[in-house]
Amino acid sequence: MIVRDLKEIRSSEKNVKSDGWVSARMLLKDDNMGFSFHVTTMFAGTELKMHYQNHLESVLILKGTGTIEDLGTGEIHDLKSGVMYALNEHDRHIVRPTTDLLTACVFNPPVSGREVHDENGAYPADVDQDREPALTE
Amino acid sequence: MIVRDLKEIRSSEKNVKSDGWVSARMLLKDDNMGFSFHVTTMFAGTELKMHYQNHLESVLILKGTGTIEDLGTGEIHDLKSGVMYALNEHDRHIVRPTTDLLTACVFNPPVSGREVHDENGAYPADVDQDREPALTE
Repeated sequence: MIVRDLKEIRSSEKNVKSDGWVSARMLLKDDNMGFSFHVTTMFAGTELKMHYQNHLESVLILKGTGTIEDLGTGEIHDLKSGVMYALNEHDRHIVRPTTDLLTACVFNPPVSGREVHDENGAYPADVDQDREPALTE
Repeated sequence: MIVRDLKEIRSSEKNVKSDGWVSARMLLKDDNMGFSFHVTTMFAGTELKMHYQNHLESVLILKGTGTIEDLGTGEIHDLKSGVMYALNEHDRHIVRPTTDLLTACVFNPPVSGREVHDENGAYPADVDQDREPALTE
């Protein structure tokens, strides 16, 4: 059994800060759960354009308000406590936090914790995945 | 993109109540995320003995207090907002909520939503898994 306290993660190297967000990695790939689990804050007033080409992600809003724009459909959804969005189709999207948005996020496959968003707003595929043979037709 | 509001789930058949807990299934197997995601409340004063033999589960405490006993080691851990436990070894455990415990739970593999805990405190393996050939030695 793994037991971890967000407060301890916050003061460790598993608390990763980048442009517009900070993310406490509660579970990562090497925990062998088959997913990773993060408590992530997106900062008020930022505009976060993201496209996770290599991951599926679900996000539950715990605190705060904002919007998410689905760049595939143009739809804009309100975000507030209790709303969840799931990027089940690797959806390109923009999150616009009105206040700081505190969220609980699940990634499949799990991230290793070393990733930063690349120029497309994606996390790169896991190195181990790259080693797997590619499908050829 | 899937967008769901906990309030809507609460008033649907995806809000499952059983002995000692109620669980809002935000994402289930048929959402094809590779995990399921639940907002689960365990009720104050109950004693929940569980053993997920067929699933890995992580649980983040959002609100409330209680304890979890690891029946493999005998260790007892305090539960409060920000504490996460992960049953990475299918650990047998007892949760004792002092107050109602509001939690965010991830299951791998995803549950279908039709499961109830069996006499061992487990969810049964998914029907599709049962159809897979068993390993024989």
